[in-house]
Amino acid sequence: MSAQYNVCVIGLGSMGMGAAQSCINAGLNTWGVDINPQSCNALKQAGAKDAGHSAIPFAQQLDAVVLLVVNAAQVNAILFGEDALAPHLNPGTAVMVSSTISSADACQIAEKLAEYHLLMLDAPVSGGAIKAAAGEMTVMASGSVTAFEQLAPILDAVAGKVYRIGEAIGLGSTVKIVHQLLAGVHIAVAAEAMALAAKAGIPLDTMYDVVTHAAGNSWMFENRMQHVLDGDFSPKSAVDIFVKDLGLVSDTARSLKFPLPLASTALNMFTSASNAGFGREDDSAVIKIFSGITLPEKKQ
Amino acid sequence: MSAQYNVCVIGLGSMGMGAAQSCINAGLNTWGVDINPQSCNALKQAGAKDAGHSAIPFAQQLDAVVLLVVNAAQVNAILFGEDALAPHLNPGTAVMVSSTISSADACQIAEKLAEYHLLMLDAPVSGGAIKAAAGEMTVMASGSVTAFEQLAPILDAVAGKVYRIGEAIGLGSTVKIVHQLLAGVHIAVAAEAMALAAKAGIPLDTMYDVVTHAAGNSWMFENRMQHVLDGDFSPKSAVDIFVKDLGLVSDTARSLKFPLPLASTALNMFTSASNAGFGREDDSAVIKIFSGITLPEKKQ
Repeated sequence: MSAQYNVCVIGLGSMGMGAAQSCINAGLNTWGVDINPQSCNALKQAGAKDAGHSAIPFAQQLDAVVLLVVNAAQVNAILFGEDALAPHLNPGTAVMVSSTISSADACQIAEKLAEYHLLMLDAPVSGGAIKAAAGEMTVMASGSVTAFEQLAPILDAVAGKVYRIGEAIGLGSTVKIVHQLLAGVHIAVAAEAMALAAKAGIPLDTMYDVVTHAAGNSWMFENRMQHVLDGDFSPKSAVDIFVKDLGLVSDTARSLKFPLPLASTALNMFTSASNAGFGREDDSAVIKIFSGITLPEKKQ
Repeated sequence: MSAQYNVCVIGLGSMGMGAAQSCINAGLNTWGVDINPQSCNALKQAGAKDAGHSAIPFAQQLDAVVLLVVNAAQVNAILFGEDALAPHLNPGTAVMVSSTISSADACQIAEKLAEYHLLMLDAPVSGGAIKAAAGEMTVMASGSVTAFEQLAPILDAVAGKVYRIGEAIGLGSTVKIVHQLLAGVHIAVAAEAMALAAKAGIPLDTMYDVVTHAAGNSWMFENRMQHVLDGDFSPKSAVDIFVKDLGLVSDTARSLKFPLPLASTALNMFTSASNAGFGREDDSAVIKIFSGITLPEKKQ
């Protein structure tokens, strides 16, 4: 089946590019879409059938579409906006929405897709660029059995692990959002702890060494505080991504009338960092909201 | 040397008992002190020279004392209070203070010990009861070269890893306090995330599975949320321990005039849990501050 399976990945950022390359590596006929021509060229050189700024020219050939754009507004614009893709897709085509979006947006998108008889999988991803390129993303997905079946070749190609949360659209998004709550707070508290250590005169490399060998460790502490030690705030994932994602966490909790003492504080910290001009720096730059400390300088 | 090395461990809780047993296993002549006669009997059966409610009867024989009591007040009471131990120790005896205390308290204790010509190592520990019993605690220590040398047989016996933070008393305590900042916030945010997932209708075992295989994981999430899944809030480490430890974090930051947006919120969460009657339950019971959710019941 996979030799004749036709998929288009829309959004060739770090995750989308990795996913598209993994589809190519798995032998799927793969198309790419991005507004950046350089990304399109890179994917064509990697073996894509074609790549450009719109999927409409090859929409009729597709079995599936994977969306890895930034947010729900972009998903909606691509599928249903000006030059909408949805009307050009064959009925029964499966749309895997892998952007981090709210549960409410996921439900709304599924309803609109259904009007065109298109299937949706609510399928956010995690793992970062390296895992995406290796075809080992974590996918947390909800949707119909049919949607899972139709997207199986893609899930096999891009995912190291697929969590089937349930059939209801929105569950996948919610799991991703709860995950982002943890990820965001872990980065912010890592920054808070290292800032306090700096203020107290503890050598930061020692502090890092202790924490990463003890019960206070987190995946994010270990990964992001290395950037602080290196004085390297070039964005692997930017502050503004967590302004967005913790905003989705906040929206989700508000719609459930549920309090979030820590996540709301962390959102405020990332928002402060963005407001201070660090929005496009690495998310570990949230440590720069703390005054009166000296951080390691980047080695030349 | 170790065959004739004489040490007394004061405070035979989960960490102290493990440390004392590790000293026995390493061939040190080991005494124990606790107000609980059952703990004393257990240590005697494990091979201690003797154990009782005071170290004064054998103080003259000791090369070193290890303190693993709950807080600075207990350390001060034992060393300098009624029936003070300090005046009974030979000059030059080394005192390893391994309770979690503030940097200010550590400095004050060191000064008072110096009046009796006693050496101090500011040596908080981490790792939990299992690592303590295995002689594999993490020790984060500061003190003079002489203090480190004199306590070397004990450090060899009880520690898997010893971090030498520096010579100044207070640095060891501060590193431990920054570590507890992370540990406490990680437990509280784990609870917040799982509570939100419960409210949103996500199966908690699925949520746990996703997080523990993704970038949102922390050591504390993985360890403590298993207690929530099991519905088992019997205390491995109690809510009130983090009321105390995050209180020390708060004291430390205030003395440095440094803000702690997340740790102050987490302290408030543990304090709320204690105030609601959960102070002696497992620290994962901080999740019980969230109303309107159904948590897993304990399997009979």
